[in-house]
Amino acid sequence: MRASRYLIATQKETPSDAEIISHQLMLRAGMIRKLAAGLYTWLPMGLRTLRKVERIVREEMDKSGAQEVLMPAVQPAELWQESGRWEQYGGELLRMNDRHGRDFCFGPTHEEVITDLIRNELNSYKELPANFYQIQTKFRDERRPRFGVMRAREFIMKDAYSFHVNAESLDETYQIMHRTYCAIFDRLGLDYRPVQADSGAIGGSASHEFHVLASSGEDDIVFSTQSDYAANIEKAEAVAPSGERALPTEELKEIATPDQRTIEAISQFLNIDAIRTVKTLLVKAEAKEEEDTSNAGLVALILRGDHSLNEIKAENLEGVADPLTMATDEEIEAAVGCKAGSIGPVNLNVPVIVDRSAAQLADFVCGANKEGYHLTGVNWERDLPLGRVEDIRNVVEGDPSPDGKGTLEIRRGIEVGHIFKLGNKYSTAMNATVLDENGKTVIMDMGCYGIGVSRIVAASIEQNHDDKGIIWPDAIAPFQVAIVTLNAHKTPVVAEAGEKLYEQLKQAGYDVLLDDRKERPGVKFADMELIGIPHRFVISDRGLAAGTLEYKGRRDEDKQDIAIEEALPFLINASPRKGL
Amino acid sequence: MRASRYLIATQKETPSDAEIISHQLMLRAGMIRKLAAGLYTWLPMGLRTLRKVERIVREEMDKSGAQEVLMPAVQPAELWQESGRWEQYGGELLRMNDRHGRDFCFGPTHEEVITDLIRNELNSYKELPANFYQIQTKFRDERRPRFGVMRAREFIMKDAYSFHVNAESLDETYQIMHRTYCAIFDRLGLDYRPVQADSGAIGGSASHEFHVLASSGEDDIVFSTQSDYAANIEKAEAVAPSGERALPTEELKEIATPDQRTIEAISQFLNIDAIRTVKTLLVKAEAKEEEDTSNAGLVALILRGDHSLNEIKAENLEGVADPLTMATDEEIEAAVGCKAGSIGPVNLNVPVIVDRSAAQLADFVCGANKEGYHLTGVNWERDLPLGRVEDIRNVVEGDPSPDGKGTLEIRRGIEVGHIFKLGNKYSTAMNATVLDENGKTVIMDMGCYGIGVSRIVAASIEQNHDDKGIIWPDAIAPFQVAIVTLNAHKTPVVAEAGEKLYEQLKQAGYDVLLDDRKERPGVKFADMELIGIPHRFVISDRGLAAGTLEYKGRRDEDKQDIAIEEALPFLINASPRKGL
Repeated sequence: MRASRYLIATQKETPSDAEIISHQLMLRAGMIRKLAAGLYTWLPMGLRTLRKVERIVREEMDKSGAQEVLMPAVQPAELWQESGRWEQYGGELLRMNDRHGRDFCFGPTHEEVITDLIRNELNSYKELPANFYQIQTKFRDERRPRFGVMRAREFIMKDAYSFHVNAESLDETYQIMHRTYCAIFDRLGLDYRPVQADSGAIGGSASHEFHVLASSGEDDIVFSTQSDYAANIEKAEAVAPSGERALPTEELKEIATPDQRTIEAISQFLNIDAIRTVKTLLVKAEAKEEEDTSNAGLVALILRGDHSLNEIKAENLEGVADPLTMATDEEIEAAVGCKAGSIGPVNLNVPVIVDRSAAQLADFVCGANKEGYHLTGVNWERDLPLGRVEDIRNVVEGDPSPDGKGTLEIRRGIEVGHIFKLGNKYSTAMNATVLDENGKTVIMDMGCYGIGVSRIVAASIEQNHDDKGIIWPDAIAPFQVAIVTLNAHKTPVVAEAGEKLYEQLKQAGYDVLLDDRKERPGVKFADMELIGIPHRFVISDRGLAAGTLEYKGRRDEDKQDIAIEEALPFLINASPRKGL
Repeated sequence: MRASRYLIATQKETPSDAEIISHQLMLRAGMIRKLAAGLYTWLPMGLRTLRKVERIVREEMDKSGAQEVLMPAVQPAELWQESGRWEQYGGELLRMNDRHGRDFCFGPTHEEVITDLIRNELNSYKELPANFYQIQTKFRDERRPRFGVMRAREFIMKDAYSFHVNAESLDETYQIMHRTYCAIFDRLGLDYRPVQADSGAIGGSASHEFHVLASSGEDDIVFSTQSDYAANIEKAEAVAPSGERALPTEELKEIATPDQRTIEAISQFLNIDAIRTVKTLLVKAEAKEEEDTSNAGLVALILRGDHSLNEIKAENLEGVADPLTMATDEEIEAAVGCKAGSIGPVNLNVPVIVDRSAAQLADFVCGANKEGYHLTGVNWERDLPLGRVEDIRNVVEGDPSPDGKGTLEIRRGIEVGHIFKLGNKYSTAMNATVLDENGKTVIMDMGCYGIGVSRIVAASIEQNHDDKGIIWPDAIAPFQVAIVTLNAHKTPVVAEAGEKLYEQLKQAGYDVLLDDRKERPGVKFADMELIGIPHRFVISDRGLAAGTLEYKGRRDEDKQDIAIEEALPFLINASPRKGL
């Protein structure tokens, strides 16, 4: 491509409403432009990268045996009513009426449509397993779209759905997709981790997320220092400190703690470590058939003072309302008779769930259920029954790894892929069956597998940039090579050498941008670096006189002179991945 | 691809709700499935063809110098309000509200979005001309979606928009796009015609449609028998019969014609040819600043009895309401004092526009503006002034070609492409300007260029099928070659030979479907013919014993035996277009 005939829409200023570096650089490098909140146009430069990501995803999905389809973006409400999600899905579902007043939505996902298709098309176990995918524009009406294409409303997704006669077959395809995702993210040149994840609202029995590691990531992901254990923070299991609980050494005392309502305040006031305190959180209990008025419909969650509640773990527990709902100040006062900062588990008149680490404490401090008072020297079993113990906290760095090997580290990640075992959630709701080997009608098992195609572009930048701009991995660079000619409009020999090298590299299968614009050298260099093209050749009058051109890799500190005839062999050596 | 691992979703029965052959065959060949009215899922087999069409369109657009972008499907109302189309566009615009209640639409076209983008990005004549295209999912909320993907609500379109500093530059790009469209439709293997078209509601000064010729087409297109003149019926110019008008020979008479209200009835009653009658149609006049009450706001259109009104030509005329609106029975009675069937131009108290052919008549018959009476022997200038003469009729077969060469023929066409000179309609409304060579701010000229990508798939089938199914051109066949193995599950040597040929043809760059299903030979043959794969090899036990396999081209009457080692050379000869 000749830059003089191409939209090079670079900008010097950092746009004020772009918070994260990928959003800033995608705007500055002329990859995208904002149309409205969460809606972006992909300019030619950005689209080239997007298409390369798509292509890698498509090739690996095809290789895995998945079949590509294309379902409509606009979906009729009837199918969502059948699965129950028309009611359950919140404001993120963009609903609309057609000219006849019928209900439709702009699909954020396609479980219903594919399940409807497959229940009509497939009849026998002989046609299974089958895995169908599409690369398609989706819409999620985010309340606060932000970070550019990272959390846009309209975005491009690869979604796949597999169908199975039994759980073993689902497991096999799930493993194939796990490997396929690794192959995709490897080819994309990303530093990523697959982590165990909670399967959450979408239902199902197992799931993994694929995270690109980047400090700007919105998610905490957790690794073992000594094994391949990895999970997102929602899922990562918090194990109790090893050993037996210490024996009581203090007496139970009630002490006045006027105006001390937080763990921090109490710790300072008593001059103890927060690790010796517990906090008590009151949340709504799961609704029951017969209303039990004895405990005001609340449950108490007990955590060590230095730990934080893991809401997902809590709401997944039997007896706890899902989604997790904190009790209001009024409900707390009505049930316990004090404010939130003074609650404690001793003689508490609501059911108690104790975190594993809190259950190991001895001689601890807690609220006295009396405004302005705390208890010290509290001990389980002696002063109060221990009752139900569960894992309800977030892990912290240094926690033992749940597989017993090493301790946990926490890093930030950007979720770019997610694989789920859906089980029979949708196939049961929508009666998607086949005949098995015995001629018996069975509900199909399903898996689903997503990749955020447009998000990957931003995630890659979060991981690969410097103060000059983007640094693309070769595989998804909009152009692999830039040829910058200096003063070519005044120096025919430079223009000629540029054209010659341009044709040579194109012939060899490279995506080449010939920067033949009538701009100052500094402007051209800055643009090519901002855009992030991995390899750059500079052709100048002086270089040609010496029979050389100048090469600089985007990550290199220094330039180097190379004999003109060595340019192609040099490039093949530097970038063996050609011709995407 | 191995058919045993691929969704071959063929059907024997012709679906009852599919009216045209392409819709029937796309369903029967397992290319698409209906999700809801006008919404179709592309199954793997159909998507392969769709992607090949996309690819050809993309390659030729790139070659033309156009730059690919991707704009959001969801567009904010504000831009449509700026262009004025938020109000003008009817029920086909799918409007919606986001979670904050803001107005959006699912874009049926992107003039507003691209004009907004370009007015922000480009500032100088030096950056022009520029042409941007996308291949994207669009939505048009058709009142009566039908004919499958031919007139779907959600569909895939290639839309391009060019920007220019002046009309000459627009003209140049328009010509480039004309040539590019021809290259695209040539490569697609379609029998098509570019025809002059009315630029209609979208505005602008020139336009051509590209029609695939097919008897099921919804449009009439018109050609000269002796020149390359071609236009759609809306645009095709109807010239008057040559020579002078004949002199009057009859006297004007008023005769009673009780209950004779149609041209057909009057012709029979008077025993004359319809060619000697005129019909008079009353339509609404163009609204004026000052209401002119003298003619009740109506205009009379006079046509020869055997001709039909061309509504587009009529509504484009000064003085006629656009869109064309027929007068109601009440308005006719109030203005003329008789019913529609008895109106005539003599002493008519509304302005008259006479078609060129009607203006050539002598001694003609018309209504007497009196219920149950007609006039005979009517002659222009003698009995009534001729007044304004215009071209307001549809051409008919045998009409002289407007370029003076040959006569006109009419065929049916399916519109698959359309190019427009938009001029400055959108750029004026949205103030899209650049600086010209003199530093003066000028409004840009624009062109727009559409191709119905998904519609092309159906149009190709309308043109290429027989009673066994689809017949794909090589370039867009889902697979170019089928290898059918007979009883391979019982005959290892057949299975082996099938695999070997499969690998060999794939290596050579062909898209191959190996039909390795455990089905009867008849079922496999019927499926491959229904799906329309251009080349078929059959491998059987008996053939192998003789060292041969059987070849049949999809259009061939007869099969032929070919030595196994000759298969690839034979195919290369039959289908030089490889490796799409």
